[in-house]
Amino acid sequence: MANLSDLPLREELRGQTAYGAPQLKVINQLNTNENPYAPSQAIIDEIAEKVCELGAELNRYPDRDAIGLRTELARYISRQTGVTVDVENVWAANGSNEVLQQLLQAFGGPGRKAMGFTPSYSMHPILSSGTLTEFIAVERQESEGFAINLDKARAAIAEHRPDVIFITTPNNPTGNLTTLAEIRDIVEAAPGIVIVDEAYAEFCDEPSAVTLLKDYPTKLVVSRTMSKAFDFAGGRLGYFVADPAFIEAVMLVRLPYHLSTLAQAAATAALHHSVDTLATVEKLCQERDRVRTRLAELGYDVIESHSNFIFFGHFSDSHQAWEGFLKRDVLIRDVGVAGWLRASVGLPEENDAFLSAAEELAPKA
Amino acid sequence: MANLSDLPLREELRGQTAYGAPQLKVINQLNTNENPYAPSQAIIDEIAEKVCELGAELNRYPDRDAIGLRTELARYISRQTGVTVDVENVWAANGSNEVLQQLLQAFGGPGRKAMGFTPSYSMHPILSSGTLTEFIAVERQESEGFAINLDKARAAIAEHRPDVIFITTPNNPTGNLTTLAEIRDIVEAAPGIVIVDEAYAEFCDEPSAVTLLKDYPTKLVVSRTMSKAFDFAGGRLGYFVADPAFIEAVMLVRLPYHLSTLAQAAATAALHHSVDTLATVEKLCQERDRVRTRLAELGYDVIESHSNFIFFGHFSDSHQAWEGFLKRDVLIRDVGVAGWLRASVGLPEENDAFLSAAEELAPKA
Repeated sequence: MANLSDLPLREELRGQTAYGAPQLKVINQLNTNENPYAPSQAIIDEIAEKVCELGAELNRYPDRDAIGLRTELARYISRQTGVTVDVENVWAANGSNEVLQQLLQAFGGPGRKAMGFTPSYSMHPILSSGTLTEFIAVERQESEGFAINLDKARAAIAEHRPDVIFITTPNNPTGNLTTLAEIRDIVEAAPGIVIVDEAYAEFCDEPSAVTLLKDYPTKLVVSRTMSKAFDFAGGRLGYFVADPAFIEAVMLVRLPYHLSTLAQAAATAALHHSVDTLATVEKLCQERDRVRTRLAELGYDVIESHSNFIFFGHFSDSHQAWEGFLKRDVLIRDVGVAGWLRASVGLPEENDAFLSAAEELAPKA
Repeated sequence: MANLSDLPLREELRGQTAYGAPQLKVINQLNTNENPYAPSQAIIDEIAEKVCELGAELNRYPDRDAIGLRTELARYISRQTGVTVDVENVWAANGSNEVLQQLLQAFGGPGRKAMGFTPSYSMHPILSSGTLTEFIAVERQESEGFAINLDKARAAIAEHRPDVIFITTPNNPTGNLTTLAEIRDIVEAAPGIVIVDEAYAEFCDEPSAVTLLKDYPTKLVVSRTMSKAFDFAGGRLGYFVADPAFIEAVMLVRLPYHLSTLAQAAATAALHHSVDTLATVEKLCQERDRVRTRLAELGYDVIESHSNFIFFGHFSDSHQAWEGFLKRDVLIRDVGVAGWLRASVGLPEENDAFLSAAEELAPKA
């Protein structure tokens, strides 16, 4: 058997370790911002029906352009954002990671730069590095509630001239949002494209950045996922909404037949039941507000969340605190921001378990 | 609406068009080397059962490392090649395209070179270009039956020092094979890694290059797919077999959760029934030999195929000949090799339709 160091790996990768939250089996799984509600029986039945219907065609390659699925996504986005979009405005792939990777392959790459406002979704720098795009991190300040500081953003854009800018709103891991007016500001300053990552949009009352697409057809892309509000993380379906020219662009870099027949059919089935599925969003938002209020009562600092998770502190040693939660059968996430931890909003009983652990671990007044 | 040329696309991509065979609806689909036999009802039933069983977990992210599926693939490979391999020797992704892209991200990339013996699988240069790996094509000669010329190969390797070498065997689109002795020769000359692309291995009697892994643990990777013999093109499942260090390497570049719960479950179900499924291979090989014999009788040049397709000529205008087949309701593939066309082996009646078109279009004696 060989060692990794015996292989002629690219220099940039030497010494790196694989990305990913620990996949531990813990009673209360509040670490990856999944929707804790299982898909409805109606969705499961429809997927199983589709398998029976399409099974006999599995020897054939799938529809390479996923027209049916993208049509269904366009219908959903039109309804959810109030902006009428069509199949030509939507692109889908195996999770928003693949969507973002494709965008970086087309618009980033060697000699080009991406910019993000950190802490934010940790895959943005990893995907940039995977596509050999230089990543510029502009830090959000704890003292400003982890909001994007627009003056700093404009200065950094002017200095670095990034080809791709990521704005995550609501932001992961902090949960706060960037308003449409702020997004406009950044898009107008941007020399290249701006990807608004709306993975958690359904948990937020702010209108979607999809409403801005008509004003910035050559600059703005809005990415989304079915992994969060849609309780479909296991289905791995991410997508983006943009001017049709962006879809043409990623078709130059996408792997042919990247989305399987089953992936297309299952996501389409889940979209057919979106109204029912998204009924859980309201419950989760109520639970989020309950958890937040209680954490504040316990003496924690809590960032106002517009998402299905909560960013809270302040811990003198956040990794030790993370272990304290784990010992109490509650798996949350240490995202590497000193003093802070992120907890997903789960089922009421999971949130109760989290809150009683939080009570035991609360900062002494 | 914007035009693609209005977007700040990477320079390399400007003017390119998206890759892919035309997805036309034609009665006789003999263009993408799919297995024409539908998956058995037992497979379809098992996938549907798995959907019902796992559906309630679709709100959760899949097993990131696909342990169950990789274990099943290892069992299959051990049985099919006679070499005992384990879960640590196998890696899986959404089609062999994604597998090969991951290998190029880890071992190719800017400043590095890949080499292939063309004509061969057309995605090798495209994936190289997508990962910004320079692709060196060493041409196979029609006068040598499109075999790899080992003297030329060694000279090209010495000259270019490629980091990654692709050997497709049986080769697509030509159908001929590279022997284990020839593979050894190339691996020993190679300064970097060698990927033996065995997408069509099940149609061939030559032992798998998996038998060579023990001799070249730091150099050799064998890639495979479930899209061909397994009649599972719609499931999009590719994999490779190698020393565990190679699996560690691609885990540095793979997108987290790249394989959905459904993809893992469906491929596992298909593997459970591999003995039944692969019974179609024998039928296809018989049909292949029948088609080949008849084409030769009709005056065509035919390369001896060890796969489920046939490469034949010689046409004065192969694109016009391709259109001639299409007019006769037979969709085959013009792979861009002047004078030659590729036809997949289909069901007996599809092959009859192909042969009667071939008779009408036969070169005049």
